[in-house]
Amino acid sequence: MIYFDNSATTKTSDKVAQQILSDLTSNELFGNPGSLHKLGITSGNAYDEATKAIASKLGCKKEDIIYTSCGTEGANTAIEGYLSRNARAGKTIISTKTEHKATLETLEKMLKLGYNVVYLPVGMDGKPDLSVLESELAKGDTAILCFTHVNNETGAILPIEEIVKIKNKVSPKTVIYLDCVQSLGKLDINLMKLGVDMASFSGHKIHGVKGVGVLYIKTGIRIDPFIRGGGQQGGLRSGTQSLMLADSFRYALEEAVDARANAYEEVSEINAYLRRELLSRGATINSPDDALPFVLNVAFKGFQSETMLHALESFEVYVSTVSACSSKTKKPSYVLLEMGVDRKIAANSVRLSFSRYNTMDEAMEFIKIVDKVYDMYLIG
Amino acid sequence: MIYFDNSATTKTSDKVAQQILSDLTSNELFGNPGSLHKLGITSGNAYDEATKAIASKLGCKKEDIIYTSCGTEGANTAIEGYLSRNARAGKTIISTKTEHKATLETLEKMLKLGYNVVYLPVGMDGKPDLSVLESELAKGDTAILCFTHVNNETGAILPIEEIVKIKNKVSPKTVIYLDCVQSLGKLDINLMKLGVDMASFSGHKIHGVKGVGVLYIKTGIRIDPFIRGGGQQGGLRSGTQSLMLADSFRYALEEAVDARANAYEEVSEINAYLRRELLSRGATINSPDDALPFVLNVAFKGFQSETMLHALESFEVYVSTVSACSSKTKKPSYVLLEMGVDRKIAANSVRLSFSRYNTMDEAMEFIKIVDKVYDMYLIG
Repeated sequence: MIYFDNSATTKTSDKVAQQILSDLTSNELFGNPGSLHKLGITSGNAYDEATKAIASKLGCKKEDIIYTSCGTEGANTAIEGYLSRNARAGKTIISTKTEHKATLETLEKMLKLGYNVVYLPVGMDGKPDLSVLESELAKGDTAILCFTHVNNETGAILPIEEIVKIKNKVSPKTVIYLDCVQSLGKLDINLMKLGVDMASFSGHKIHGVKGVGVLYIKTGIRIDPFIRGGGQQGGLRSGTQSLMLADSFRYALEEAVDARANAYEEVSEINAYLRRELLSRGATINSPDDALPFVLNVAFKGFQSETMLHALESFEVYVSTVSACSSKTKKPSYVLLEMGVDRKIAANSVRLSFSRYNTMDEAMEFIKIVDKVYDMYLIG
Repeated sequence: MIYFDNSATTKTSDKVAQQILSDLTSNELFGNPGSLHKLGITSGNAYDEATKAIASKLGCKKEDIIYTSCGTEGANTAIEGYLSRNARAGKTIISTKTEHKATLETLEKMLKLGYNVVYLPVGMDGKPDLSVLESELAKGDTAILCFTHVNNETGAILPIEEIVKIKNKVSPKTVIYLDCVQSLGKLDINLMKLGVDMASFSGHKIHGVKGVGVLYIKTGIRIDPFIRGGGQQGGLRSGTQSLMLADSFRYALEEAVDARANAYEEVSEINAYLRRELLSRGATINSPDDALPFVLNVAFKGFQSETMLHALESFEVYVSTVSACSSKTKKPSYVLLEMGVDRKIAANSVRLSFSRYNTMDEAMEFIKIVDKVYDMYLIG
């Protein structure tokens, strides 16, 4: 089996799985962190330890992160929560049409609530037009910028440093929400240095588990809670806290950050090799040259996306067409179309996405299988 | 250790813990159910199997349930989602002040959005005044009723059959949302027969795990999604689906339902024994006589709630003051006050809550410890 669909989800690491088993079978750690007695306190302390460890790896304060159930909840909470709480911050939201659906659907809701949403044009390099950003910010009505650190379909890296600079110069009061779901554990993230105000993360993209995410909200930024109830997590996210999920994020993150530099190098080699081999077979590479190496979006000559996906699947090779969240609509990727990729190329596009578990041997085997697929389907 | 705080949270059963480990370490089951390839489909099928098994135990259709991250998200989704989608259904919400904070905080939000919230008076029996319900419903403006099947602090059981009858007679178009977090696995729940339109459940109250809940939305009831994004779960709840969490709910529910009749009998004996012994020691029982036996709310003569909690804790006996969600505010229970319990009694109240893992031996040991506590603290 060759699993090149790590941007859709990853396999839970053995360490994380064992930690979960250990948490769940412990007689000391099952209390409700909201309980006043020793069992609650023990579980609450372990939960705080996890939060502290996560904050340390993200370069932020423990008080600045909350747990969510997924990256999607993080996007909903950050955008809606900020706008709801800061009614006088402006009525304009700036974003792009290449965001994840979690952001786009939230922006649709905000539009109906009377907000003005400006989508910056995005180039073939996957980057938003920063001159338009600057002129829009200069109008003085922008409450929030909503961007993605690394695009989930192409790996395009956002020039976040430049964006922060422009924002601070032209409209310092505007806040920045950054979707870091695909950059976590792949780029070197230090939230304090990054200069964004809110950032969302997901556990299952870094060999953690499905069902937990983290949302960073910088000290001083006030948001309304999205999920309301018993007031857990400083009132920002109600619902009984889960030590198991907090620990799963913690250990997945620690492993990912510790392995990051090596993984980046290995995956860069895999990516470079695949680009070279696929280009020589007539493929078109949709990922920008300077994209994150963990994602390689490629159009196979003569193959519709889904045909190629199923052909590869017959060899136990797993890739995706568009993002897993949108795959069942069977339309060409809206991300590629927005970047200006030709509709026919977009319809032939497949996303290969890697993790630290992938190897160069798998990459070489993959190319052999691609050749077999061409031999089987395109002869004559 | 004696753990009598099962309404706050329960220990994960061994079967559930082992199932989670098995799901997380499988090479077949880690795919994203949204993916088109075999790994996604295998994982999606297993996820559907879990949903089918849960629906079967709840007496509803597989299509009528979605997963949430907790009971709190369920309450937020049901109430806000229904009102948002059905703008012409009426501007009145009927509820009580003894609901869980997840409901009360959502109702506060709805109040700010212009809805009229009517709180029915609640008697010492923990039951809402049904004559007021009937007269309020007769006004014809009620969109939704929000009630709790079993109160989490007293075990008071809602006369849901009567409420459904009154509603169907007086205002058939009004829908009913029922918080079933504390009744699941304890009362015999069949959603089709129950006649409610939406119902929420939580995994960690039935020896599952913290981080998963289920929301029932009857066919024909339309709601707006609460968490928006990639359109998973029929567009009603976005975010990558978690097989591990679905399975944890499934196996916890199957075990709970299968053990229900026996557990009910055993816990009834425990409850009756404790009531008798505690009454003979001057305690006041706040739980109604016809309450669910799994919860026993009791005021210990001469002891403030927190003092008793910590005294018991020193013997490794775990109980709670008010619900874990509200425990850190250190105020007397708003539920007891609303029922008309004297403020001083409320300040002395402690909740004992049981599960099928508790035994009569523990109950007898508990009484011995209570006697020791009285000897130690109240002599002279």
